[in-house]
Amino acid sequence: MSEGLRRIRKQTGNFLEDFRPGQVFRHKGGKTLTEGLFATFTEFAMTANPLAKNARYARAHGFDGLVCPPGLVMLVAFSQTVEDVSENARANLEYLDMRFGAPLYLGDTVEVETKVLGVRGSARQSNLGIVHVQSTARKNLGERDEAVVLTWQRKVQVYRRDERAPLREGEVAPDPVECALWLPPYDPGRGYAALAHLSSPDSWFEDFAPGTLIEHSRGRTMTDEHIHLTAVLDNTSQVHCNQHMIDLDPERYVGGKLIVFGGIPFVLCLGLSSPDVGDNALGDVAYRTGRHTAPLFAGDTVFASTEILGCAGYPGRPDLGLIETRLVGHKFEREAGARQADAPPGWKRTRIFELERSLAVKRRSHYAG
Amino acid sequence: MSEGLRRIRKQTGNFLEDFRPGQVFRHKGGKTLTEGLFATFTEFAMTANPLAKNARYARAHGFDGLVCPPGLVMLVAFSQTVEDVSENARANLEYLDMRFGAPLYLGDTVEVETKVLGVRGSARQSNLGIVHVQSTARKNLGERDEAVVLTWQRKVQVYRRDERAPLREGEVAPDPVECALWLPPYDPGRGYAALAHLSSPDSWFEDFAPGTLIEHSRGRTMTDEHIHLTAVLDNTSQVHCNQHMIDLDPERYVGGKLIVFGGIPFVLCLGLSSPDVGDNALGDVAYRTGRHTAPLFAGDTVFASTEILGCAGYPGRPDLGLIETRLVGHKFEREAGARQADAPPGWKRTRIFELERSLAVKRRSHYAG
Amino acid sequence: MSEGLRRIRKQTGNFLEDFRPGQVFRHKGGKTLTEGLFATFTEFAMTANPLAKNARYARAHGFDGLVCPPGLVMLVAFSQTVEDVSENARANLEYLDMRFGAPLYLGDTVEVETKVLGVRGSARQSNLGIVHVQSTARKNLGERDEAVVLTWQRKVQVYRRDERAPLREGEVAPDPVECALWLPPYDPGRGYAALAHLSSPDSWFEDFAPGTLIEHSRGRTMTDEHIHLTAVLDNTSQVHCNQHMIDLDPERYVGGKLIVFGGIPFVLCLGLSSPDVGDNALGDVAYRTGRHTAPLFAGDTVFASTEILGCAGYPGRPDLGLIETRLVGHKFEREAGARQADAPPGWKRTRIFELERSLAVKRRSHYAG
Repeated sequence: MSEGLRRIRKQTGNFLEDFRPGQVFRHKGGKTLTEGLFATFTEFAMTANPLAKNARYARAHGFDGLVCPPGLVMLVAFSQTVEDVSENARANLEYLDMRFGAPLYLGDTVEVETKVLGVRGSARQSNLGIVHVQSTARKNLGERDEAVVLTWQRKVQVYRRDERAPLREGEVAPDPVECALWLPPYDPGRGYAALAHLSSPDSWFEDFAPGTLIEHSRGRTMTDEHIHLTAVLDNTSQVHCNQHMIDLDPERYVGGKLIVFGGIPFVLCLGLSSPDVGDNALGDVAYRTGRHTAPLFAGDTVFASTEILGCAGYPGRPDLGLIETRLVGHKFEREAGARQADAPPGWKRTRIFELERSLAVKRRSHYAG
Repeated sequence: MSEGLRRIRKQTGNFLEDFRPGQVFRHKGGKTLTEGLFATFTEFAMTANPLAKNARYARAHGFDGLVCPPGLVMLVAFSQTVEDVSENARANLEYLDMRFGAPLYLGDTVEVETKVLGVRGSARQSNLGIVHVQSTARKNLGERDEAVVLTWQRKVQVYRRDERAPLREGEVAPDPVECALWLPPYDPGRGYAALAHLSSPDSWFEDFAPGTLIEHSRGRTMTDEHIHLTAVLDNTSQVHCNQHMIDLDPERYVGGKLIVFGGIPFVLCLGLSSPDVGDNALGDVAYRTGRHTAPLFAGDTVFASTEILGCAGYPGRPDLGLIETRLVGHKFEREAGARQADAPPGWKRTRIFELERSLAVKRRSHYAG
Repeated sequence: MSEGLRRIRKQTGNFLEDFRPGQVFRHKGGKTLTEGLFATFTEFAMTANPLAKNARYARAHGFDGLVCPPGLVMLVAFSQTVEDVSENARANLEYLDMRFGAPLYLGDTVEVETKVLGVRGSARQSNLGIVHVQSTARKNLGERDEAVVLTWQRKVQVYRRDERAPLREGEVAPDPVECALWLPPYDPGRGYAALAHLSSPDSWFEDFAPGTLIEHSRGRTMTDEHIHLTAVLDNTSQVHCNQHMIDLDPERYVGGKLIVFGGIPFVLCLGLSSPDVGDNALGDVAYRTGRHTAPLFAGDTVFASTEILGCAGYPGRPDLGLIETRLVGHKFEREAGARQADAPPGWKRTRIFELERSLAVKRRSHYAG
């Protein structure tokens, strides 16, 4: 490299001392949902809801075409916030009050804004603190079908760049954001029953009862494809894709290897649960809270289970019911001598993810009668 | 996990005792062919026919646009049947009478039905038996261009859930299914010759002669990308994607590792043969019979060869010929001291796949004259 | 395999003795840009220019829709030439005079022609020589929007099939090819400023000064996904995808392993530089010269830096400036005892790629005012 050059190394992302309560980020980029992105993520996660796979079925239900499944809506929207909010994070601590709005279709363009709700330094670890944010994703700004597609809060554990820099600690109230799941109207003339064989015969609203735990039978092994998948989402966090950085200081990073972006097990768990819980849903309504409880690495196999917490009528929609669930993801790790009730001998079961999830589920009486 | 929950572990797929002759499955899901799926599979398999790559070329030949190559038609249609027919299979034994119909275009939606033709327990292995099925894939049901795109039979070796459960053995006749390759009419006014440089100069009908064996020169190494590819196809069979299941009982599974879904070497062999045999075809007509003769694993490199079995005029189409071929796939495995005529010293050649394949191939006289 | 068959092993690609100055190849295939291909390559490379990600933004700038980023234009066009020009190459020595023309949109079909400009045997290595070619990629031939999208020269080191075969050495002049970057007209009524938050705040023309070296902060680890990516591009060179061929003669091939196709680090470097240098560009104008200086393998992490060589007004466009840069890619390799100024202790920094690159960059005064 030539002599005498002025060297610049641009900072990417923000550190703890860069945030202040009330601050607003209008995130860069934006993302148009192409058929390439759609195929990559809908299908890799084993999503089983025909709304996301079969355009004939989706149109017959009153949607404009294939409907982006909730996991991909979340991935696209969330990833837009990574550079500003969590590129320099140690961990994503919690998802809160994630609510779905308008359906996302192929060709729609998503843009996202984030408001900082809280900043707090850690008492025990001087190089860390917690940032609390509220983000909202809108589609097709300035067009006739502009709409909110997702809004959520999250808490992130963020590094300080300089441990002595002053913090702007505090909290502000979240903005009220109108965001409720759009549902196509029920129309008995549509002939839904002729499509009922395309989804599971036992995942209608009538099939669920509180106090049930459904162990989803499939597992899915994750490979180092996660590096590519994460890049495709515009998630720029280096702990997912920069092995050299890990090699330079392996002890700083969990396990000394690249960590799979949390959005990947998030959508894998949704996908694994899909044939049992989600394929007769018209949509996911909200995720009240969620968190990653252990990291996922290439080579791990992801499993999931769903606990049914509650079943209720869907306000104003006799054709639908609302089910409240807890979706849990887990993996198995070898451990000599381990004997756990819910794991094979020699293995321990590690919970990696949990999500309080409510869905708007079709009633058999109205859709398969 | 909370106490006192009722645990449910849903069965996925059927076991030998669940099948009965004459039974019909209308498979779940359905699949709209997106540009994402198209790119993933058309191109990864090194397909060389410009009908699947160059929309200008496809339209000039009388198609509506890019034509889904036969390997992808097969993958999409076949995968829809996996959950019901072969999720609990030990092996796919044989493909029979696979015939192509209407072209599959981007945006088309495929749905598939399967009839059980035969069920038979194994005399030697009490936990296994054979299921014989006939499947038919249709596109765009209920729309103006509804059509059969593929019909086929296959025989699958399926596990019993309970070795003492009674079997419903027997056989029924296949349904007659009208399915013949749709071909765009020949129109000399289209100026085909101006496009002739876009395909191989030596793969016209006039270039083939029975008694020839073409060793396709390229090889393609398979990686653990097969896990992703299989999921993207909605193939839910766990032997392709659940490493933990294999780890728990490695001796039960061939090689103690994930097996690559047979559809992957199937389309790779079609792709490897494509520049020599398939890039001047208007379509694959039928696969009379085919089978996988050895498993493929991540790390293996796939090669292919084509034997020309026969050449004949195409009924009613002076511009085309029909070639009958045997497509064979193979890989090489290290073996100390091995000395085979058709393998390098120290390696043995293992046949992994064979397919009796007929193609409708353009004549140079009519398309490059 | 049956006895008595006539065996054919078709040659693919050309060897040194097959080329002659003045020879023209009209390459096979052609390629329609699908949304699948677009997503795979735009996003995996971490491209940050919203023109390639956000259709609303692209249309507001006067483009028809999402604009194919320069790296993908190059990959698609270049790959079409591989079978004829470099399938039997040892190395791609140099890119020369690569110039961009019309924008490439989703649905466009690219076809490519190449003229041989020079052939020369190596004095030192009797099995090698250099072929110098000029290639031009056009889109939508015969349609209203037919246009040149890219033209370039390159020099390739090619193997001889037979060391005693006569060479047709010599040189001919390149064809004049009209190819200049198409730019949408500047229209202050479009309200560009309302979109300015979607790109970096410090990558406007006014932000650059000659004599600056920008170390791009991110890295990206390459995996064996490169095999798939290369196939998806129709690049048929076996050194990228045929591990068995390498295993048979590991000493012949650099490192004894599959080499990543040079187009991959090319676009990765463009992508890594994108948030600092490219996301406020209306397009890349030209790559005067470029070369790969070391191979990339699966497992390596790619980094990049950009040196600003010059800044000037863009002729006829007061809203734009022209920046001349040198884009350099590098990786780090472990080396016991290494102490380099620009590498961590125990690592050496290996330059893998360099490219003289000029971009048409928007002025803050006109687009964010």
